[in-house]
Amino acid sequence: MTELDPAELAAARRLDDEDPIGWLRERFTVPDGLVYLDGNSLGALPRSTPDRIAEVVATEWGAGLVRSWNDAGWWSAAGRVAGSLAPLLGAAPDEVVVADSTSVNLFKLLVAGGRLRPERKVLLAERHAFPTDVYIARSAAELLGGRLRLIDSPDALGDALDDDVAVVALSHVDFRTGSSWDGARTTRRIQDAGALALWDLCHSTGAVDVALHEWGADLAVGCGYKYLNGGPGAPAYAYVARAHHDRLHTPLPGWHGHADPFAMSPEYLPMPGAGQLANGTPPIIALAALEEGVRTFDDVPLPELHAKAAALNALFERLVATHCPELELASPPQRGSQTCFRHPQAFGLVAALAERGVIGDFRAPDIARFGFAPAYLRYVDAVRAAAAVRAVLDSGAPGDHRFGERGTVT
Amino acid sequence: MTELDPAELAAARRLDDEDPIGWLRERFTVPDGLVYLDGNSLGALPRSTPDRIAEVVATEWGAGLVRSWNDAGWWSAAGRVAGSLAPLLGAAPDEVVVADSTSVNLFKLLVAGGRLRPERKVLLAERHAFPTDVYIARSAAELLGGRLRLIDSPDALGDALDDDVAVVALSHVDFRTGSSWDGARTTRRIQDAGALALWDLCHSTGAVDVALHEWGADLAVGCGYKYLNGGPGAPAYAYVARAHHDRLHTPLPGWHGHADPFAMSPEYLPMPGAGQLANGTPPIIALAALEEGVRTFDDVPLPELHAKAAALNALFERLVATHCPELELASPPQRGSQTCFRHPQAFGLVAALAERGVIGDFRAPDIARFGFAPAYLRYVDAVRAAAAVRAVLDSGAPGDHRFGERGTVT
Repeated sequence: MTELDPAELAAARRLDDEDPIGWLRERFTVPDGLVYLDGNSLGALPRSTPDRIAEVVATEWGAGLVRSWNDAGWWSAAGRVAGSLAPLLGAAPDEVVVADSTSVNLFKLLVAGGRLRPERKVLLAERHAFPTDVYIARSAAELLGGRLRLIDSPDALGDALDDDVAVVALSHVDFRTGSSWDGARTTRRIQDAGALALWDLCHSTGAVDVALHEWGADLAVGCGYKYLNGGPGAPAYAYVARAHHDRLHTPLPGWHGHADPFAMSPEYLPMPGAGQLANGTPPIIALAALEEGVRTFDDVPLPELHAKAAALNALFERLVATHCPELELASPPQRGSQTCFRHPQAFGLVAALAERGVIGDFRAPDIARFGFAPAYLRYVDAVRAAAAVRAVLDSGAPGDHRFGERGTVT
Repeated sequence: MTELDPAELAAARRLDDEDPIGWLRERFTVPDGLVYLDGNSLGALPRSTPDRIAEVVATEWGAGLVRSWNDAGWWSAAGRVAGSLAPLLGAAPDEVVVADSTSVNLFKLLVAGGRLRPERKVLLAERHAFPTDVYIARSAAELLGGRLRLIDSPDALGDALDDDVAVVALSHVDFRTGSSWDGARTTRRIQDAGALALWDLCHSTGAVDVALHEWGADLAVGCGYKYLNGGPGAPAYAYVARAHHDRLHTPLPGWHGHADPFAMSPEYLPMPGAGQLANGTPPIIALAALEEGVRTFDDVPLPELHAKAAALNALFERLVATHCPELELASPPQRGSQTCFRHPQAFGLVAALAERGVIGDFRAPDIARFGFAPAYLRYVDAVRAAAAVRAVLDSGAPGDHRFGERGTVT
């Protein structure tokens, strides 16, 4: 790999040597020689996951069969993962449920949230949020007999908040630019206007500070496959603050969220707490993978983890600014654990980087996105990535790649 | 194991020897000595699944990371499984989607179905259907501004169908008793009343004849973990007849059901066909397991499979009637691939059978349920199960067991 500057590399090596959570990388399988800056799309494989999945498949399913619902703890698996996840959210276990996908959980919470403010008819979201969030919010508003209001940027929040807004759904960290809201201040602002604050934490949990209790958040959702390392399409989670448990009314009731599931009654009696948001039979193999992913955070000092995320991003930003001035920074200072740049040939840049073993991601129309999973990335990775960007720009390779079927290039 | 009657066992052995699909059992791992009559709760492990899952986890996820969305075909995995599943449903590939859970798919189709009949305000379901089906139908009716009407039995269908009924959701095979509707005749009856027919196929697909085109069915859902052998909590599927594709309007729109997902547009443009029912990022590991499950049906002559299911159930019914008259048959002649009996100590009976290596299932309050997955069960299993029932009754063991936390006993 091209060297950017021997002094930078040496300095990064020192930072890695002194890294108080450098040992954490050992909990993951990261392919040799790869600089993986897309853990905010799909997190790396925890070392413990293959054996655990093999056990679930061959022993628990194959030999135990249906008996494993009791004998292997399948019945309690989702609750167990929710309990392990709660500290990463700054929440209590009974406020968290692990189930379904982020999309489905967002739908449940938007409808349930709208029902908590029945006199208000507006759901508010960001136009440039992850697109599914917008589609789901529009659909929930339609089913609630209300409407969706979209804002273009954080600056527009004040004007958009009025007595008609029931729920405000915001991505704590923007998937394109990494731009991040102040969780506590924004929650207060929303609640001051009489609305509920719903946070999409997909690009936050496991990388940056999430403190739902401290923020006073009402509702939240997030996915398991990014910084939580739960595997491709891992189950998602949802959070409901305890204050709302008594009046919670999910639009997707099911037997796994029933207070007495084996009564098999035609009358629905919700389980107390966020647990009522479970519905169908949980995906046991996928839950086992997510559990291993969440377990990688065991004994990890979260403030150190979040500080490292900020430091990795700051280093990469500085290196690119110094050595690759052709790239325009697209991420604001207050952001999640990703640093993004605009470039007219961003797709080609990301493709050419992949050929050099640096995996970033492209987001249309012109963003090259570099995510820094603090659990398994090193400071030397930031230096190597910046060196590769410089080398690709020098080679003229970005122009060789055309935009393909998918944003993630091979 | 106690012998019931040497002649019965010998006859069953001959049937197994002559079984034209006896080879199919080799595609599964069935624990030695176990008579597994709960494949209608959780299907057996296909032999190919452990290696395939290990490959997905270690190679595709671990080494390929996010590149596997393209390189390992993850992006098309759900569509590929839907394509393999379509023949088992008597449907075309573009009418089938694999996504989410049965509960979530049922919700999507009830809401979408209600929207196809906007002038009608009633969703109709069975009071004794699987409880989640009832909860979801009640919720969908509420969100559509309509109401749920419940019937107690098939006999009540005629009186319940009027000009207000938009969608009728029925379990093709009842989860408790196995009782089955005539798919074609019932669909016609529902459609003659101007409503749409939605079939829950959880207890049908892979064991009994499902022919959605032939029935003229409008909508259907089903799970992947029973006779499809996709593993605990496997992804589910949904079917929408082509006639309804143009006006299909899902309440859970998402980027994986978008016509151009990587445009990442805030405007939702549905993918053509049933594909719009996909929404969030699909569960890749679970999909791989389901794909192996569905692949166990490759080259299997379905009429032979369905005939064997009927023959296994008929044999077990006859043996129990002859040798265990204490049990009252709870399944009608027209039924799925399960035979159920009422007994005041059904829970204890099922528990004591499990101790003897015969796994059935209990459904409150008094049903002992025995499912016969025709893909991997043998005629000798029916004889051994009946012998075990006789032995348990003789031992007085049913009275030793009390009803526990879960229906499935260990």
